[in-house]
Amino acid sequence: MNYFIGAAMGEETKVLLTLFIMLAAAKLMAELFERLRQPAVAGEILAGVFIGPSLLNLAAPSEITSILAEIGVIFLLFNVGLETKPAAILNVGKRAALVAVLGVLVPFVGGWWLMKIWNSTSVESLFVGTALVATSVGITARVLSGMGLLDAPTARIILGAAVIDDILGLLVLAVVSSMASGSVNYLEILTTAALAIGFTALVTLVGAPVITRIAPGVERLRSGHGMFVLGLVLCLGLSVAAAFIGVAAIIGSFLAGMALAEAGENHPKMHRQINGVTEFLVPFFLVNIGMQLRLDVFASSSVILLCFLVTVVAVATKLLGCGLGAISLGLKRAGQVGMGMVPRGEVGIIVAQIGLSLAVIGPELYGVVLFMAVATTLIAPPFLKLLYAGEPAAQQEIGPPDAGGIVASEDFCKIG
Amino acid sequence: MNYFIGAAMGEETKVLLTLFIMLAAAKLMAELFERLRQPAVAGEILAGVFIGPSLLNLAAPSEITSILAEIGVIFLLFNVGLETKPAAILNVGKRAALVAVLGVLVPFVGGWWLMKIWNSTSVESLFVGTALVATSVGITARVLSGMGLLDAPTARIILGAAVIDDILGLLVLAVVSSMASGSVNYLEILTTAALAIGFTALVTLVGAPVITRIAPGVERLRSGHGMFVLGLVLCLGLSVAAAFIGVAAIIGSFLAGMALAEAGENHPKMHRQINGVTEFLVPFFLVNIGMQLRLDVFASSSVILLCFLVTVVAVATKLLGCGLGAISLGLKRAGQVGMGMVPRGEVGIIVAQIGLSLAVIGPELYGVVLFMAVATTLIAPPFLKLLYAGEPAAQQEIGPPDAGGIVASEDFCKIG
Repeated sequence: MNYFIGAAMGEETKVLLTLFIMLAAAKLMAELFERLRQPAVAGEILAGVFIGPSLLNLAAPSEITSILAEIGVIFLLFNVGLETKPAAILNVGKRAALVAVLGVLVPFVGGWWLMKIWNSTSVESLFVGTALVATSVGITARVLSGMGLLDAPTARIILGAAVIDDILGLLVLAVVSSMASGSVNYLEILTTAALAIGFTALVTLVGAPVITRIAPGVERLRSGHGMFVLGLVLCLGLSVAAAFIGVAAIIGSFLAGMALAEAGENHPKMHRQINGVTEFLVPFFLVNIGMQLRLDVFASSSVILLCFLVTVVAVATKLLGCGLGAISLGLKRAGQVGMGMVPRGEVGIIVAQIGLSLAVIGPELYGVVLFMAVATTLIAPPFLKLLYAGEPAAQQEIGPPDAGGIVASEDFCKIG
Repeated sequence: MNYFIGAAMGEETKVLLTLFIMLAAAKLMAELFERLRQPAVAGEILAGVFIGPSLLNLAAPSEITSILAEIGVIFLLFNVGLETKPAAILNVGKRAALVAVLGVLVPFVGGWWLMKIWNSTSVESLFVGTALVATSVGITARVLSGMGLLDAPTARIILGAAVIDDILGLLVLAVVSSMASGSVNYLEILTTAALAIGFTALVTLVGAPVITRIAPGVERLRSGHGMFVLGLVLCLGLSVAAAFIGVAAIIGSFLAGMALAEAGENHPKMHRQINGVTEFLVPFFLVNIGMQLRLDVFASSSVILLCFLVTVVAVATKLLGCGLGAISLGLKRAGQVGMGMVPRGEVGIIVAQIGLSLAVIGPELYGVVLFMAVATTLIAPPFLKLLYAGEPAAQQEIGPPDAGGIVASEDFCKIG
């Protein structure tokens, strides 16, 4: 008889089981890694590698895990945005821009040059160069917020640079994609650039004052949880808007969070609710990255070598490029900024997917880029922990230990 | 160039847009309904009808909306379970059992008898009877928690009866499905019944003491948010377990919540995080119900008449059956219990889907059952609000207004 019920519920139950396995594996590995004094983030990505199709095959990436992963990283950046006041980013604007520009230029040239030496075609070289451009700031944000360091000056630079980096990466991808398909439409590229910059400026400069003004009215709404609901709607709405313009959805949610940051200070309840959503969904984001890794790429030794070389170039060029942009802060801080920009995560994977869908890179090179994306994401967290060791932690937290919470208990009570 | 990026992101952006529309429409209608002094729940379901394929066609049910809806109702019942100590349910056990048994018997006979008069086949009649059996307690739980009335004595009876009702409904469905396919395997049915009852007893009686014991250790876990993570893992894990046994997944999450209820009392942070997840996901559950409604069912007047009759019988028989089971509490409370058991929601829809997949009911009758499921779900909330008007509300809340929160602010500070 379970057969009959299974007829209608089978699929949904299987999905629930997959989600359960992803969540449980992530949290188990997170705990293990914390006990080994390694970053939980790396453990959760490795959990994905273990349970994924390459090893235990307990779970596989699907449309549903992808969308949960996407919502997860959207909320992660929203959460980070909530801790980031627009002024703090604008203050580091010039340096962040320099970090972003050098962090786009150096990896692009490095990747392109490596593939040229490797005797690849021009288009392949351009695509690998492009895949090395885009930083996935989610991983770094997770590590820094876990250490309570989102307030550190270099954290601000990394966040600001990530936004600019994403817009620049979008433009590089546009040019390269156009070249791959034969013609470059400069007008269209200029329009998109203008849209992306306009969107960022609008949300950053106009969004915050407007929201601070309407916040008291929102909290009085009859249907309850006013600020939380406003946060959810803004977070999803601006993510969609960003994606339509062509920037990553997470840029939209980060800007949404930033627009809410000032008004949100007086709403610890909203913070904790958003934090709950984030904590629930982020494991799907991290595990999903790990599950993408196909170990069968390592079939030939030349592919293994290429994986290694591309990853080395990916790490070295971001460290060098972004570090150079921040060198005036001293060597240690330049290292923090450079390492913070190393993870490529899902952004590198998206570039590789576009290359694959345009048939300008083959499945082997796709595998190499995938490996690079996962490897850079795994390499950065331990080094970030080392580079940031000893920095004074603030009260904020998103992913971290013990009783804490987003707002320290005393602050909570003053408000509550 | 957006074309190129769209090539890889198009699908995901469309899904994000759908989710944004669902969330925004739900919250807009919730606010409107609250201002009209109607229950927000009804507004959110109607939002689904409006944006769904039948009317504006802005969003349609898909695998992803279904799974988000499923996770949403799983968390809703988990949340309700968190407010329900096992003792409170065991205290009302006998009465709840009586309510459940009569609430299964009367609607089943009523539905069967109506279809017989309508000149349907025996199998069709049995299926409509079965579709009238299973209560979807999510809607009632949402209304009562919104009013802060999860502590009311009749709320306990409704929750207890819903668990028993679900097990009985499972057995009726098993028998009817077996009959439809020609042979009844009594041994298998008995096994399933034993499993379902054993699972419920195990979690209720053994789960709570075990969790209360391990809670302090869990909260000290290095990876942070220990109790919250334990809650998430238990909630998903027991939902999957319940679904594998053949009971509804929400019964598993309700029991998981109940097992955590005592240990969770000292963890207001966990409550608020779970509350955030629930508030984010529940709109997808409610809107998804509304989106299922196909208005093209109303093509023929005989179908309209049948929709009307089946819905009337569905409401009347649950009111009568469950009310009779609680009549010793007086007429008003019997009415509260009866009305609380009226919504069929997704459970009725699942029965209809099984009938459709076994080819024992046609698409027209499927449409009728769907209409009944949505209609009973829309009818109950306003009457529940009326029937419970004047009851003293407790501090708890899940879906409700203003600054409140799960725990009153002063309590929070004593702990924080």
